Amino acid sequence: MPRAWVINFGNELLIGRIVNTNGAWLAEQLTLLGFDVRRIIVAPDDEEAVEVLREALSKADVIVCTGGLGPTYDDRTAEFLAKAVGRRLVENGEALEMVRRKYEERGLPLTPERRKMALLPEGSKPIPNPVGTAPGIMLEVDGRLAACLPGVPAEMKEMFERYVKPVLRERAPNVCIYEASIVVEGVPESTLAPVIKEVARSCPPPCYVKSHPKGHEVRAPVLDIRVMGSARNCEEAEAKVREGARRLREEAVRHGGRVLEERVYRLGD
Amino acid sequence: MPRAWVINFGNELLIGRIVNTNGAWLAEQLTLLGFDVRRIIVAPDDEEAVEVLREALSKADVIVCTGGLGPTYDDRTAEFLAKAVGRRLVENGEALEMVRRKYEERGLPLTPERRKMALLPEGSKPIPNPVGTAPGIMLEVDGRLAACLPGVPAEMKEMFERYVKPVLRERAPNVCIYEASIVVEGVPESTLAPVIKEVARSCPPPCYVKSHPKGHEVRAPVLDIRVMGSARNCEEAEAKVREGARRLREEAVRHGGRVLEERVYRLGD
Repeated sequence: MPRAWVINFGNELLIGRIVNTNGAWLAEQLTLLGFDVRRIIVAPDDEEAVEVLREALSKADVIVCTGGLGPTYDDRTAEFLAKAVGRRLVENGEALEMVRRKYEERGLPLTPERRKMALLPEGSKPIPNPVGTAPGIMLEVDGRLAACLPGVPAEMKEMFERYVKPVLRERAPNVCIYEASIVVEGVPESTLAPVIKEVARSCPPPCYVKSHPKGHEVRAPVLDIRVMGSARNCEEAEAKVREGARRLREEAVRHGGRVLEERVYRLGD
Repeated sequence: MPRAWVINFGNELLIGRIVNTNGAWLAEQLTLLGFDVRRIIVAPDDEEAVEVLREALSKADVIVCTGGLGPTYDDRTAEFLAKAVGRRLVENGEALEMVRRKYEERGLPLTPERRKMALLPEGSKPIPNPVGTAPGIMLEVDGRLAACLPGVPAEMKEMFERYVKPVLRERAPNVCIYEASIVVEGVPESTLAPVIKEVARSCPPPCYVKSHPKGHEVRAPVLDIRVMGSARNCEEAEAKVREGARRLREEAVRHGGRVLEERVYRLGD
């Protein structure tokens, strides 16, 4: 499976004012496309961003970043990306035209701060922003792809859906993902741990088995155990997940658990 | 300012099923204590966690991590932390006693999966878990502190408040943090960008000036500009922030903006 890293720039995220919903949204999109998301990193908008981007591009096939594309002094993502890949920051004609048109509509001139939004790493393709003003950045380096989008969720989502997803689809294994959820009452997670491990072993990645404790481990244990599996073939993915679910259910019941709910469903669009 | 990294382990975060509210909550707590939070990283619960922890401990004064402390096969945070700092994983007597007592209350034996929760890197202090079962880990290495807490928010918060915060207070600069919020209508962010930059320059870290676009940059611009400043002395922090706010308000009005709201307040507990 190709690997993806998500990087979210922003001081407001680092001081905990804003919860990183962008990160989770992108991670889900990438997972559903068939990527193995290995990191979601909130990073500061200063020089340290360069090393974060460099590491990401050395370890991931695709990186998606958000934030730092606007007109203010601390919007420096394009600069950091250029440094990370060793390219110059240049005025991109296509991006400048996108920005110019936005302000022209309101009779506003192209000030240096507005022009700045068209400075992209050499070789980038600007991503149109149908919702806001700052264009995004699409850059391919040594077969790896970086897509940078604004931090405003409405802009980020629209741009991802329209312009990034179609490009990522070509790099994704085009898998079908199934999941089973078995909610069990009355058995501590520690009691089922050996079974969970065994089922996980018999269902290697891209198949995950995870238990999410909902109640209290000792006093009132409730566990939501999920089996997620993917395959190019939907029947195969579903069968794999159903088999894992069946074994977990049987073991849970054997240990005195009561199955409150069991569902098997296909993930994604 | 001492630096802090937050690391959240968990596959359910990486596939975007769960939004990382733990990360934001911890980042806010650390900021209010006077730490400079430099990263919030969602990382996988496999060998890559070792390098993430190693890097964190080489760059941050304090790291707080969540997740991976339970009884299942993929709860491996103690093991990764031990590897990251080059220590052995040993059964901690105090931790074992905590775990034993929890299960004994319900007449449950100490199985290997339950015992596993008492395996900590050599030299760790277990953090009591008043809400759930798995103890946390507190480990000091070369003057740097790592605190690992469970991923269940109720357990994480209670343990942080009771046992981690008091320790961190001794390592924090004990600052007073003020913030101003000025909500301005009618001026594009790009127009105010030069002023924002100037105010930011005249108020160096730990003072931050950030503008958050709320409306549409060109069609209906609404900006929430924040000035956050800290100092050991509360009067000084407040004065610094008020001065920044005053200048931003004046410039916004000079550029035809309408101030919808202006507030100055102290952050934290």
